[in-house]
Amino acid sequence: MDDLAQLTEANQQFRGYGLVRSARLAQTKKGDPFYNLTIARGKTEIPVKVWSDHIHGREDEVKQMLQEGKVIFLEGDTSTYQDQLQMTARAFRAAEEDEYDIAEFLETPPEPIEALQEELEGYLQQITDPLLAEIVTSIYAKYKKPFSTYPAATNNHHSFVGGLLYHTVCMLRLGMDVSTRYPAVNKDFIIGGITLHDASKVMEYTSHIAPAYSVPGEFIGHISMSSMLVDREVQRILAGRGENAKLTKLEQEAVYQLQHCILSHHGRMEWGSPVEPKTLEAHIIHLIDMIDSRVNMAERGLDGAPEGEFTKVFPLGKLYKPMSGDD
Amino acid sequence: MDDLAQLTEANQQFRGYGLVRSARLAQTKKGDPFYNLTIARGKTEIPVKVWSDHIHGREDEVKQMLQEGKVIFLEGDTSTYQDQLQMTARAFRAAEEDEYDIAEFLETPPEPIEALQEELEGYLQQITDPLLAEIVTSIYAKYKKPFSTYPAATNNHHSFVGGLLYHTVCMLRLGMDVSTRYPAVNKDFIIGGITLHDASKVMEYTSHIAPAYSVPGEFIGHISMSSMLVDREVQRILAGRGENAKLTKLEQEAVYQLQHCILSHHGRMEWGSPVEPKTLEAHIIHLIDMIDSRVNMAERGLDGAPEGEFTKVFPLGKLYKPMSGDD
Amino acid sequence: MDDLAQLTEANQQFRGYGLVRSARLAQTKKGDPFYNLTIARGKTEIPVKVWSDHIHGREDEVKQMLQEGKVIFLEGDTSTYQDQLQMTARAFRAAEEDEYDIAEFLETPPEPIEALQEELEGYLQQITDPLLAEIVTSIYAKYKKPFSTYPAATNNHHSFVGGLLYHTVCMLRLGMDVSTRYPAVNKDFIIGGITLHDASKVMEYTSHIAPAYSVPGEFIGHISMSSMLVDREVQRILAGRGENAKLTKLEQEAVYQLQHCILSHHGRMEWGSPVEPKTLEAHIIHLIDMIDSRVNMAERGLDGAPEGEFTKVFPLGKLYKPMSGDD
Amino acid sequence: MDDLAQLTEANQQFRGYGLVRSARLAQTKKGDPFYNLTIARGKTEIPVKVWSDHIHGREDEVKQMLQEGKVIFLEGDTSTYQDQLQMTARAFRAAEEDEYDIAEFLETPPEPIEALQEELEGYLQQITDPLLAEIVTSIYAKYKKPFSTYPAATNNHHSFVGGLLYHTVCMLRLGMDVSTRYPAVNKDFIIGGITLHDASKVMEYTSHIAPAYSVPGEFIGHISMSSMLVDREVQRILAGRGENAKLTKLEQEAVYQLQHCILSHHGRMEWGSPVEPKTLEAHIIHLIDMIDSRVNMAERGLDGAPEGEFTKVFPLGKLYKPMSGDD
Amino acid sequence: MDDLAQLTEANQQFRGYGLVRSARLAQTKKGDPFYNLTIARGKTEIPVKVWSDHIHGREDEVKQMLQEGKVIFLEGDTSTYQDQLQMTARAFRAAEEDEYDIAEFLETPPEPIEALQEELEGYLQQITDPLLAEIVTSIYAKYKKPFSTYPAATNNHHSFVGGLLYHTVCMLRLGMDVSTRYPAVNKDFIIGGITLHDASKVMEYTSHIAPAYSVPGEFIGHISMSSMLVDREVQRILAGRGENAKLTKLEQEAVYQLQHCILSHHGRMEWGSPVEPKTLEAHIIHLIDMIDSRVNMAERGLDGAPEGEFTKVFPLGKLYKPMSGDD
Amino acid sequence: MDDLAQLTEANQQFRGYGLVRSARLAQTKKGDPFYNLTIARGKTEIPVKVWSDHIHGREDEVKQMLQEGKVIFLEGDTSTYQDQLQMTARAFRAAEEDEYDIAEFLETPPEPIEALQEELEGYLQQITDPLLAEIVTSIYAKYKKPFSTYPAATNNHHSFVGGLLYHTVCMLRLGMDVSTRYPAVNKDFIIGGITLHDASKVMEYTSHIAPAYSVPGEFIGHISMSSMLVDREVQRILAGRGENAKLTKLEQEAVYQLQHCILSHHGRMEWGSPVEPKTLEAHIIHLIDMIDSRVNMAERGLDGAPEGEFTKVFPLGKLYKPMSGDD
Repeated sequence: MDDLAQLTEANQQFRGYGLVRSARLAQTKKGDPFYNLTIARGKTEIPVKVWSDHIHGREDEVKQMLQEGKVIFLEGDTSTYQDQLQMTARAFRAAEEDEYDIAEFLETPPEPIEALQEELEGYLQQITDPLLAEIVTSIYAKYKKPFSTYPAATNNHHSFVGGLLYHTVCMLRLGMDVSTRYPAVNKDFIIGGITLHDASKVMEYTSHIAPAYSVPGEFIGHISMSSMLVDREVQRILAGRGENAKLTKLEQEAVYQLQHCILSHHGRMEWGSPVEPKTLEAHIIHLIDMIDSRVNMAERGLDGAPEGEFTKVFPLGKLYKPMSGDD
Repeated sequence: MDDLAQLTEANQQFRGYGLVRSARLAQTKKGDPFYNLTIARGKTEIPVKVWSDHIHGREDEVKQMLQEGKVIFLEGDTSTYQDQLQMTARAFRAAEEDEYDIAEFLETPPEPIEALQEELEGYLQQITDPLLAEIVTSIYAKYKKPFSTYPAATNNHHSFVGGLLYHTVCMLRLGMDVSTRYPAVNKDFIIGGITLHDASKVMEYTSHIAPAYSVPGEFIGHISMSSMLVDREVQRILAGRGENAKLTKLEQEAVYQLQHCILSHHGRMEWGSPVEPKTLEAHIIHLIDMIDSRVNMAERGLDGAPEGEFTKVFPLGKLYKPMSGDD
Repeated sequence: MDDLAQLTEANQQFRGYGLVRSARLAQTKKGDPFYNLTIARGKTEIPVKVWSDHIHGREDEVKQMLQEGKVIFLEGDTSTYQDQLQMTARAFRAAEEDEYDIAEFLETPPEPIEALQEELEGYLQQITDPLLAEIVTSIYAKYKKPFSTYPAATNNHHSFVGGLLYHTVCMLRLGMDVSTRYPAVNKDFIIGGITLHDASKVMEYTSHIAPAYSVPGEFIGHISMSSMLVDREVQRILAGRGENAKLTKLEQEAVYQLQHCILSHHGRMEWGSPVEPKTLEAHIIHLIDMIDSRVNMAERGLDGAPEGEFTKVFPLGKLYKPMSGDD
Repeated sequence: MDDLAQLTEANQQFRGYGLVRSARLAQTKKGDPFYNLTIARGKTEIPVKVWSDHIHGREDEVKQMLQEGKVIFLEGDTSTYQDQLQMTARAFRAAEEDEYDIAEFLETPPEPIEALQEELEGYLQQITDPLLAEIVTSIYAKYKKPFSTYPAATNNHHSFVGGLLYHTVCMLRLGMDVSTRYPAVNKDFIIGGITLHDASKVMEYTSHIAPAYSVPGEFIGHISMSSMLVDREVQRILAGRGENAKLTKLEQEAVYQLQHCILSHHGRMEWGSPVEPKTLEAHIIHLIDMIDSRVNMAERGLDGAPEGEFTKVFPLGKLYKPMSGDD
Repeated sequence: MDDLAQLTEANQQFRGYGLVRSARLAQTKKGDPFYNLTIARGKTEIPVKVWSDHIHGREDEVKQMLQEGKVIFLEGDTSTYQDQLQMTARAFRAAEEDEYDIAEFLETPPEPIEALQEELEGYLQQITDPLLAEIVTSIYAKYKKPFSTYPAATNNHHSFVGGLLYHTVCMLRLGMDVSTRYPAVNKDFIIGGITLHDASKVMEYTSHIAPAYSVPGEFIGHISMSSMLVDREVQRILAGRGENAKLTKLEQEAVYQLQHCILSHHGRMEWGSPVEPKTLEAHIIHLIDMIDSRVNMAERGLDGAPEGEFTKVFPLGKLYKPMSGDD
Repeated sequence: MDDLAQLTEANQQFRGYGLVRSARLAQTKKGDPFYNLTIARGKTEIPVKVWSDHIHGREDEVKQMLQEGKVIFLEGDTSTYQDQLQMTARAFRAAEEDEYDIAEFLETPPEPIEALQEELEGYLQQITDPLLAEIVTSIYAKYKKPFSTYPAATNNHHSFVGGLLYHTVCMLRLGMDVSTRYPAVNKDFIIGGITLHDASKVMEYTSHIAPAYSVPGEFIGHISMSSMLVDREVQRILAGRGENAKLTKLEQEAVYQLQHCILSHHGRMEWGSPVEPKTLEAHIIHLIDMIDSRVNMAERGLDGAPEGEFTKVFPLGKLYKPMSGDD
């Protein structure tokens, strides 16, 4: 067997590649160190034990190898413990980058990253206000790389590599639809607000592969950090205009509205927004965010669920998967 | 003056037409009857007193004439009472239908009723499931007339003649947009659910001109009544199929899902839905309902509001109207 | 041993009857099918494993035999697994209906079903309004059989065969008491409302023996379905009166009030009622429902609990069982 | 005119008796003192102005005369101010106790106070536990007089002279009914708990005629004070048993349960109970309290309300008064 | 009369100075412009009408003169309208700065501004971490002037000139006390967090004299803006360190903690904090804020209230003012 | 091994002392009795099995020996069960009081009990009102012993021997600080209210060593019981003053305020206070209680937690432990 998906029962022998999703160093009662790993390929995951005899004498090297997000070549044997399939490592080494295609090991969006980036950049070009365009485009340019790989959440929805970009583009599509339906809507804020609303998730999470909340994520949160990114751009632009330069009244209003779209996008104070929506666009962005995240949670939650039944999908509650067949 | 909008101060004389928006019979301390009317034309409204000498001896005729929704020809004099402009009637009579154009007296949707009906009927034709199509189309056909004149709410949003139809069509447009974006969405339920979600508001309110909650509106509510309309259609169709006919399993599932979209469209139990959304389509309908009603509340609430300021718009809270001019 | 209650430790041999309370087909890691059963007699329950050698070659027959609610004759041996007593089947067959008395296998109300039915029917005869009497009596007649066997809840209170009937009669008794105390109360609605308030639980649950939420139970709920049953009766009665027949104003008011008693009986929107009580009778029915269900929860929760201590009884919280003895 | 109910318009002359419901001493802008009175007879109330010329030189005497709850003989003239009928005093004097029958001036329960007392005392005799009987009877005996005249609430329900006694007896009736239905219920706690649950409202309100919250009512509240009354009886009884006497274990349990029934009778912490119900009897007392108070609120709120309509009854919300007539 | 406090009844003539607290330009029904002013001195306020004949021909000059915060010299006559004392202007002019002492017209803290500033600056010098010290000191220095004049709230607590400074110093005193009691507390964050927690209220309100919420106050709020001020300082300091300079790990941690103390100081998400306290110091700052604001609300709310009674003090609810005298 | 802290793996032999923290008598499936003990020394705890052969024939003696809070001398062998270290008793006997120092077995406050008592008594002497001083001092004197040993909570904060005293003194220190800052605060209520606010926890918990909620703790709660202690003192003092003695008005006000400080100290009804704070001192005591309990929860929760990370500390949520080292 060289594909994790083939492992289904005890006493199978495995030789193949796997992505380190998590690695925790622990100790036996005797004080011997060992690793609890989770090794993954696509959606398949399996726990792996690495006992001390594979660690002894090369502690640092092993620690380096077994970091979240690394791919290793692994030999091991399966067993079951408390009805759970697991593997015990017999040998392992770091995999060279040319040995594998990372894309095989990671869950990714249903559309290519490049196409999504291109589509998003197309929307950015539709921003008509020059100051807004400069702010949004500049932030996007600075963070384009992590923005294209980070997930949109650690759980629940869009929790995969590229999830943040995909979620943002899906929201932009709905945003364009809604703006078209209601002429009173100012597309600049729809595009700018959606693009930036979760942008600082690249700082809120620790990594794009095994994301957890970072220290600034816990202390400050993406809502405040995204708004702060706007402020930094404004300070930079003003500095470029010369000492004591100030925004015009309309520019100032536009910046406030953009920050407001970001700060209010959770919709309610008890959901973590320090201010609640006070513009048409802020209301719309909040509701579009709810549509796209719920659709994604539903699709992921019902994936593989039985037809004609209700499945619990956190945090949505029970969801029904309709029957597909003939009567 | 023959237009209510011309009345701006005391001691003006009026001769012209007005719509009776409300009429309450009261008594002076001496026991003499008099009427407190509200007379309207478009968005202009003025309170009118009709003292007992205009009522005496023709009580029934006057009562008939002064019903909500009737148009009268009225002569009167303005005065101010506690800084409020009002009128005292000198003479009045019922207006003949050919004397006036009702459309001048009522607020209406920004698009023609016929066009909205046609558009809605076009969506109904896109329902692919024959049973769902029959249920939805039949209910629409039965209630088409009031459905096209009733408001979607007594206050806040779409509270005008035709508001229910307009709100429904606006939601259908968004529903088609969203369905197009997410292929997993079943358009049949989007179209059917949106069309029927508020349909029984034609029973929940007392009239389309001066709507108040009716007795079944208070006791049962539009959420339950709309679902009941579906049940009646199902019973009718089954009766047509012969004694003891039953729905197929897939038909039954479709009916349950349709009723569920209706029953859950307020989104949460504490907002009046006896069940919370458990299908993808039910979630989407709820959120689209929030978008369209909030956009309408915002537009109506900011209509005439000062630019560059925050205005209280119930129940949304404060809303900002952006500045339009040059800096 | 031929009584499940006698099984207390490992290595006992059993030959006797048992009710299948639940049966789930599973697979060993090797792919062999086996059944996880729960076998019950009265309040005693024991898990039973049926391995594949007892299934192989007669899959359909076994599936038929091991359905929830069936009684089987079973031979097996006890063992303990993780401190839990269980049995492994050695042989089993379907029991013939004349071999056993189902009443020995099911928990039932403390009063005979027939007496409860009779008592309930006696109350129905006290309804004075002819239309209400016809509606309520007709629904009861149609559903009398499941109404007399279904539980009133899947857990917590009256969750036994006949629980729905018993809960309804207990509420009717309190309803008669309260009506007698307050002459302003209209007994028709007390009797009709209580009789129907949970009536559609016969549709909300999947079976009376091992009840779970059915598809319409999840999508529509018993509150809406019970109200719909009233609507169907009204439609049927109107159809019998001839084309375009309509209810009189008083009849219509009575029907709305009856439906309102049903729809509002959870007392608050956040507890699942789409409308909150707006009549004296609706308020009383809601509170009587709370009394009878809490009393039942308390009695069941404290059954077997230690005296002089507090026991957790979901969802009531802690409950105290007083000391009985001498000091 | 000598009956307040006859006053309906301006310029009537009154000579007759009235109960002072409230009296507030105020000052004109010039600094002259005057009184704003409310004078009542049964349910009729009218505001009365007493200008300074009727006060000057006999300030103390007037203050004594115009206290809440006193009856005065009054001459005055009616006028209307802002559509509101009022009276200006021409002369007034204290009424002697033999001049009038206080019962004509106060709203009272629908049953005679003596009969209610007798009924309550009959229930007390049914308490079987001697300690409980002594505690409850002793408290009742001490406070019998105010207990029989105070209201059960300052507003909403049973807010009339004798309301507390009437509410308590009505609850006891329901309590006996419920206890009869469920044999597990211990009648001692039902009787004792209901009798005492609101007993300290005689301290929580300032008076039985024009009740407001007293200082201990605000600071401590009737829930805690009623429980404290029980504690004082226990201390008194123990003192009578000799130094260092202690309750037996069963006595102690009974006292705790009685106090618990009192402390938990609001049912939830957020409704003001420091502990939530943890005995069967505590749950029942809370729900019976809700039934009797809601029935009373409904009856008072719908008294005089129009038939066939919904009336707002604080704090119940809208209530419907059914049509009585023929169709 | 030349002091507003002397005006107590109609027909008094006034010649003296007053502070313009609010000025709204309105129109009579005829279309003539007039001003509704509120003129104040200390805590005394009186409404003043300025009719069009005093405006005509010098509109701009008058507009300039009647701005919030200006002091004018005014002649006028009092009258009463609906029991409310008001004044009609006969003449008015701008007051020269040397004609009056502004301190007489404004409510101020009970301690001198300079002493409060000095005390605060003393605390700042106790910050031991050099980066934190630089950030906090620099922000304080930049905003020292408005920081010393703005209120801490538009209503309720510390709503007077200098209220923000006074509230901040009072909190710092408590902060020093608490830090002394618990050695685990890091004083740097207590001092820095308290100093900055409300600092951007100088942007959240429109002015220090007649404060209302500004546009950024509504859109962004002081919680986010205060955190942003910290970010700007960090950016400035990094820029000074050279291109691509980064904070050390400990510096970064300190900045995050400081921002966290600011962002979390409302204590709960539903009270407007986007993150809830996650450090010891953040918890303490939140609770100290509650103590100082409640004490101030209580003192202001009970100022002038009757002794031995309960007074409603928004938003605290009822508060009791103890009796002071002898028994 | 003679110290529980030395036990780290299976097959160790122990001979030493241990405190019985909990002891539950159970039965094997065969019906043999055995004990599940928890034995502790300081913060170390280990589960111990005592099988029936060590119980048989000396049931009463063993029961006596194995009570919570007793110290025993124990011999046993360790083993692991489900990764959990446990011990099986080989022999055990009661330890004589002179064999051990109880202080070694119990967690205690960081300051000596005697010093805390002395400090508290010093505060009591600062109460100026003689009646208040007598009430508070008398209650303290009566309960001084348990007051000095009980914990302040069963979990979370100050849950150790002497925790109640320590928590009270810590609050008194803050109370003195706050009173000094705000002269309007009446120190008598701060000292008296804090001293008594949790005093009846000595009744609410079953013991100071292995505290659980007692029957009166569940039924009445410490909030009501502490207020009742005040009432008992008042009754005692009045009795001493002679028959029918009454408090003066100022005395009465003081007693109500003291009880109010106790009853309202949870701050909100939903947190268990039957009345919410209505005096300045009541507000302050509630907030000081929150500060001291949160600080203690944080310190205990972060004790031993990793630096530079967030740790879940119930019920505070996540807490960050700062890094201590160099960068």
